[in-house]
Amino acid sequence: MSAFDDLLAFQRQTEALSSVAERLGWDQETVMPRGATEQRAEEMGAMESVLHERRTDPRIGEWLEVAEPRTEAEARAVELIARDFTRKNRVPARLASEIARVTSLAQGIWAEARANDAPEEFLPTLDNVLMLKREEAAALADGGDLYDALLDDYEPGATGAGVAALFDQMRPRLVALREDVLGAENQPAALTGHFPHDTQLRLARACASAFGYDWSRGRMDIAVHPFSSGRWQDSRITTRVVETDPFNCFYSTIHEVGHSSYELGIDEDYAFTPLGRGVSLGVHESQSRIYENQMGRSRAFSGWLFARMHDAFDGLNVANAEEFYRTVNRVTPGYIRTESDEVQYNLHIMLRFDLERDLIAGRLDVADLTEAWNARFLKDFGVAVDRPANGVLQDVHWSVGLFGYFPTYALGNVYAGCLNAAMRAAVPELPEALARGDAAPGVEWLRENVQRHGGLLPPRRLIEEATGGEVGPEALLDYLEEKFGRIYAL
Amino acid sequence: MSAFDDLLAFQRQTEALSSVAERLGWDQETVMPRGATEQRAEEMGAMESVLHERRTDPRIGEWLEVAEPRTEAEARAVELIARDFTRKNRVPARLASEIARVTSLAQGIWAEARANDAPEEFLPTLDNVLMLKREEAAALADGGDLYDALLDDYEPGATGAGVAALFDQMRPRLVALREDVLGAENQPAALTGHFPHDTQLRLARACASAFGYDWSRGRMDIAVHPFSSGRWQDSRITTRVVETDPFNCFYSTIHEVGHSSYELGIDEDYAFTPLGRGVSLGVHESQSRIYENQMGRSRAFSGWLFARMHDAFDGLNVANAEEFYRTVNRVTPGYIRTESDEVQYNLHIMLRFDLERDLIAGRLDVADLTEAWNARFLKDFGVAVDRPANGVLQDVHWSVGLFGYFPTYALGNVYAGCLNAAMRAAVPELPEALARGDAAPGVEWLRENVQRHGGLLPPRRLIEEATGGEVGPEALLDYLEEKFGRIYAL
Repeated sequence: MSAFDDLLAFQRQTEALSSVAERLGWDQETVMPRGATEQRAEEMGAMESVLHERRTDPRIGEWLEVAEPRTEAEARAVELIARDFTRKNRVPARLASEIARVTSLAQGIWAEARANDAPEEFLPTLDNVLMLKREEAAALADGGDLYDALLDDYEPGATGAGVAALFDQMRPRLVALREDVLGAENQPAALTGHFPHDTQLRLARACASAFGYDWSRGRMDIAVHPFSSGRWQDSRITTRVVETDPFNCFYSTIHEVGHSSYELGIDEDYAFTPLGRGVSLGVHESQSRIYENQMGRSRAFSGWLFARMHDAFDGLNVANAEEFYRTVNRVTPGYIRTESDEVQYNLHIMLRFDLERDLIAGRLDVADLTEAWNARFLKDFGVAVDRPANGVLQDVHWSVGLFGYFPTYALGNVYAGCLNAAMRAAVPELPEALARGDAAPGVEWLRENVQRHGGLLPPRRLIEEATGGEVGPEALLDYLEEKFGRIYAL
Repeated sequence: MSAFDDLLAFQRQTEALSSVAERLGWDQETVMPRGATEQRAEEMGAMESVLHERRTDPRIGEWLEVAEPRTEAEARAVELIARDFTRKNRVPARLASEIARVTSLAQGIWAEARANDAPEEFLPTLDNVLMLKREEAAALADGGDLYDALLDDYEPGATGAGVAALFDQMRPRLVALREDVLGAENQPAALTGHFPHDTQLRLARACASAFGYDWSRGRMDIAVHPFSSGRWQDSRITTRVVETDPFNCFYSTIHEVGHSSYELGIDEDYAFTPLGRGVSLGVHESQSRIYENQMGRSRAFSGWLFARMHDAFDGLNVANAEEFYRTVNRVTPGYIRTESDEVQYNLHIMLRFDLERDLIAGRLDVADLTEAWNARFLKDFGVAVDRPANGVLQDVHWSVGLFGYFPTYALGNVYAGCLNAAMRAAVPELPEALARGDAAPGVEWLRENVQRHGGLLPPRRLIEEATGGEVGPEALLDYLEEKFGRIYAL
């Protein structure tokens, strides 16, 4: 065995253990008895401890020094292992464990404060989390920019400055589009009615199948916050059911199918190697978004969904497929990011990105965060935040230490915009297939050009090779203006 | 921290990891997508490798040498860790891994051979498994008896000679009872009809609740072969549904509730310590059997079940509760252990025990096993085995290397007999409660006298302290003769 083979064999077992930990997380959110929380915390803690020990094992350093990769894929595997090893070793064990301890408590405190609409119950804890994360960022940055060091964990190669420049390009056109849409005369109708649980689930399964979800390597369960989980031969999705809002169920499902299909679509030779996962959160989100929005909320697919829903629910309050398309894409004012639409979503992200970048840089104090949030929301959305639960308290991310995570949602949208333009050009028959409830031509193009590569190429290069062009916001903005211009007769 | 504390802290994490591995096994048998088998094999392999490394970690030996337990419970914890450490270190890693490899293949070969009714496809593999298990037994026995070394893994303290003597006492009375029952004039009717899947599951849940199953620390799913899984705050059960045979579902459920309740009933101070699991397979089986048989198939509880089934299925082909009690306890000739009744079950075990003891001792060749099985079955059951799938190929155990496991089923029945006599004397109100569908008085007695102790006392001593008498077969045999004497009017 060469040093490279030893390294990969060791890594393979680490990947298998990390997959076990992920499966345990799935269990916790879907099927675990409610009385098992302490036990599960100990089980997760034990798994994390084993994983941390393996990821910082000094033998990795020794193998890396002498490993001789023979192919481009092997060289990339070595690069990814070295990157992870360096990062894990830069953070002192004491700090890592303190962050784990504090954030696990902070999540509960945040949830309670949100329920009570009382930021003062949470902000002192957030201050503590922020202090620890800045310490971690300093350790990771090794003299470089703190925010970049955190962002790099989720979107390798991206920088705060780069994202800021991208967002500056996007903001004016998004703000203008939002104003035009909300001011338009002819507003789409809302869907109303009662949509029974089991019928929703049956249609959600049909949606997942329409997008090629491989049921032999996955399953669908109910979760409070939908997520997908797992890789290779076992990537499961979850959905939720609100009996007054079936779109929530169907589009959550299609979104998670996008995530899961990415993992299931990776070349199986990469399974349990460093190349065997989606390469970044941004690219992951590009898959979930292009499934959900560019394909799922297209005129073609929504026509198919209209017919299915019309049958399943014995009629709808929306008259025809064209009206239904407008309803599916309805834009309304709102405070909540997760309930937002294609037009406004990125504005929610930009707000969070600017605030968290200032927090990490020390330009903004947690004590001033609520005011900063409210001022910015008023500026971008034109309405005042009515209560903290709809403002600074709405997202879980910061409580669990996820700084640098938010921009990957918008990067995913930008990547999806680029990919959609290329996919539409390459697969002219896609609308016809989507109208039959068959996303296969699009899914196949994405599998071939994005998904199968796993971690082989860095995120930006992956998208650029797939699209044959630079990554930029124009494709997404053009798509949004064209689509919503037509829907709202602008 | 003292050496004892260090040892227990290390052990605690090992217990948590072993609990994760068990949860992974549950996932595989209940919810895992069918295409995930290779991935799961790698995940289980990685967990086993981590667990093996921890269980043979030289630091355990160092801690054990200087650990100073302060209480009886701590002394017992040290004893159990030392026992496991010694056993794990006696088996060379090469042999352990070869056994894992060969038995995982052998199970598939056995299943195929059973489906084809072709012992010749399986016996060469069994010969290989037997050779490896004899090698393992020799390593474990350290000069002592080979079979005892294997049996000790499942029923610490039991010996082949002791079990043989026990069985010799039981066999004549069981054979005589079986002949009387099968020859009796007035045979109970069989239950016939169609019993819909969902209704069976609903009643199975009611049965589990009647036996006090704690749904906040468990759940019920479907599995091909019912089992229970987990401990402390998370012990799950499974059942199966055959639409022509609802007793299969209800009594499997009650049986597994017995196993799970044992784990859930252990003093929570013992959680994730060496005392935090059921102490042996025999004691485990005593709980499942006393729930299923002595309580579940009693006249009192079957009266409650009759009324529930009569309602749920719109009538039954059995006229009244007294007839129903006879039907529930119907004894019929049959080849299959798992379909057997209280009268014949132990005879099935004795046959396997004698054969496997001869195999391990080298007194019986695998080449002669089929003939030996058939001859013994004819002798004990009075009928010739019709085909190998109903004879030597019927059980999975030997294929996966479980030699020394079978006798624990019968030991469980013997323990259950002893416990039942003591419980009935201590809890005279039990029949009245069971007739209302409430096993709580019995369950509480078992929890107090058996379950809560976990691994604190060795199996035999545990039963003797619970019952205030010697462990022997009389209580079980008296119970069986009394019960079936009445049912069959002997």
